[in-house]
This record gives sequence, C-alpha cells and structure tokens, in this order.
Amino acid sequence: MNVVWHTHAITKQTRAERLGQTPCVLWFTGLSGAGKSTIAGKVEQRLFEAGALSYLLDGDNVRHGLCGDLGFSDADREENIRRVGEVGRLMVDAGLIVLTAFISPFRSDREGVRALLEGGEFLEVFVDAPLDVCEGRDPKGLYRKARAGEIPHFTGIDSDYQAPESPEIHLDTARHTADECADRVVAHLRERAYLR
Amino acid sequence: MNVVWHTHAITKQTRAERLGQTPCVLWFTGLSGAGKSTIAGKVEQRLFEAGALSYLLDGDNVRHGLCGDLGFSDADREENIRRVGEVGRLMVDAGLIVLTAFISPFRSDREGVRALLEGGEFLEVFVDAPLDVCEGRDPKGLYRKARAGEIPHFTGIDSDYQAPESPEIHLDTARHTADECADRVVAHLRERAYLR
Repeated sequence: MNVVWHTHAITKQTRAERLGQTPCVLWFTGLSGAGKSTIAGKVEQRLFEAGALSYLLDGDNVRHGLCGDLGFSDADREENIRRVGEVGRLMVDAGLIVLTAFISPFRSDREGVRALLEGGEFLEVFVDAPLDVCEGRDPKGLYRKARAGEIPHFTGIDSDYQAPESPEIHLDTARHTADECADRVVAHLRERAYLR
Repeated sequence: MNVVWHTHAITKQTRAERLGQTPCVLWFTGLSGAGKSTIAGKVEQRLFEAGALSYLLDGDNVRHGLCGDLGFSDADREENIRRVGEVGRLMVDAGLIVLTAFISPFRSDREGVRALLEGGEFLEVFVDAPLDVCEGRDPKGLYRKARAGEIPHFTGIDSDYQAPESPEIHLDTARHTADECADRVVAHLRERAYLR
C-alpha cells in the first residue's frame, strides 16, 4: 500500500463549529412509495430555514453520476449503497447534515454504512408504510410495472425488505402526513442538539 | 431506466448564497512531490480563515474508502478520478469549494471531470516542478521505490504525465514557496469573485 494518511489542520470539528451544527447522516429507508424523498425534501427545506447546511443524496442525483456504472443486480445495489455511505462520510467530514433517500432494503448494507461513521453520526429513519399503501400510491408507476413482470427483483414484490430493528426515528406515513413526519425528524435533531 | 429526476426547492444557488461563496472545484494536478497536498492544505486554511467552507479530497481520504475497491491499473486510476469528479460535482451542488489533490496524469480524465461541471466551476491548478526536483524531494520515498522497480507504472518514471495545456492557475513550485503558491490560488479566487 503506497498510501499515507495526512492530517489537515481544518477538521470536521472546526467546520462543524463554524456551521453551528453537528454533522450526521439521516438515512431514510423504506419501500418505494413510502415517502422517503418527499419527507427528506421537506426536512431539507426546514433545515435550510433553520440556518443549517444540508445535502440530499438520492437515487436520482447519484444513479446518473457516481453510480452510473452500476445496474440493479444484488451486487450492484450493495455497491451503490456502499458508495453513497462513503460520500455521506466525506460530507459529514465536511461538516454537513446529509440526508439520503434510498430503499436500501438490506440490514447488512445499512449497518455497513453505520459502521463507517462515528457514534451518533448515523441516524436511521424508517419511513414505514404497509406494502398495499405504497402500492396504492405508486407515484412512479413502478409497482404496476413490477407486477407486470417488467422490473425483476422489485422490493416488496419479489425481493425482500428487511425493516430496521431499532431505527433512531420511526415514521408511520400511513397515519401521518409528510409535513408531520418532517417536523418529527427536525424535532429529533433539535432535542439531541444536532441543530443549535 | 426506472429513474426519474426530482427537483428540490433548495438549490446549489440558494446554498451558495447562504455560504457567501461561489462553489467550484480546484483541481490540483502534478507529479508526486510537486506539492499538491501541501499547497491544497494551505489554501484550505486560508479559505477557512476567510470564512469560506471548503473540503479537500485527496488520495488519502478517498483511497481507503470510496475507492477502496480500486487498484492502480490504468482502468482503476481512471475510475478513481471519475468518482472523485462525481463527488466533487455533488459537493459543488452542496455549495462547497472543493479542493482535490491527485496526480491525475491524463488530460482526458481531467477534461472528463471538467465536463461534469458547469462553466467556471472547474479550475485546473497545475502544480508544476521538474521531475528531478520532485524526485529530489521524494517526501514519501516513492521515487526511490519506483526506481528500484517496486512500484510499476509510476508517473514520471515509467508512466506519462500529460501536463495541462491551459490550466486556470499555473504554480511553479521550484521557484515559489508553498505559501506563495497558496496565496496565488486565493488571490485568483478573490479576483474572480469565488470569494466575497
């Protein structure tokens, strides 16, 4: 290994102090149609209004670029989540509050990202709604396609979703609106002093 | 392609305005030992003191993580630069001034990163010193190992370095100190209103 670690004078701590926030990753996980992107977008707006600096990574801004070489096989999905986790880690090091919105159905992948970060930096946000509710919403028409056999290995249809066992935040989007859920997330950040 | 683009209400522009800076990538390129990391680290400190928010990506914080699956073959080096470029693009979208310090010997790889970004967002910084000067410095002992045949495809020894043809900033580190070079970079950013 011809690699040497450098230490830089400007650290995560100095950047976080400058920004007046505690950097972390809010990892939204849940079925397609559960509301991950919608709620994450609303959290992002609230954070901006509160003076925080955040960034939202989702399948849409990552799939075309950083992960543009990856498909939808199990191995490629795992690598997709790994790279997003690594970018999250770098952005946390930069001082940001990072939001990610990916189905990320496998517990081991999510725990892999948690392991990249320091204690308290990974907040798993379970965006929970029953399959029939998600399928009824079907905002992108993906369930319809999956039922028609046009999308193999679709989470909830012919591929497993492994629900978080003890998420930091559990949102029930069948009972609460996206705005209520976003408020819950921000309240959690305030209570635990991620926001000042 | 089961991918749909979202637009988010908080944009690069709103984040950049909040931070009071124009996000960009300062892409430091040059031979091993030319001074890329040293100068980039000094620029980072000056930017922090000037109230800007920046982040330094280098082989050291990326090679172990995001690019930990890549080796040193030509194809892997190209993929390494591509991923760094994509992370740079995401961090620019987040509003940051991004510094990168990689040998990045191939013009086509660097131009590939430039093409990911919008006009004015990619600033190529040529950290220029003659091979014999870099080899004389040899801060990590890599030239010695390369001459001994222990590191194949070492840039400058048995692999090409394609110098930038019209870099935004050209630093001659054989004639100027690292502090002088860092001042040059910051002056460039001020003159062109990346910093306010």
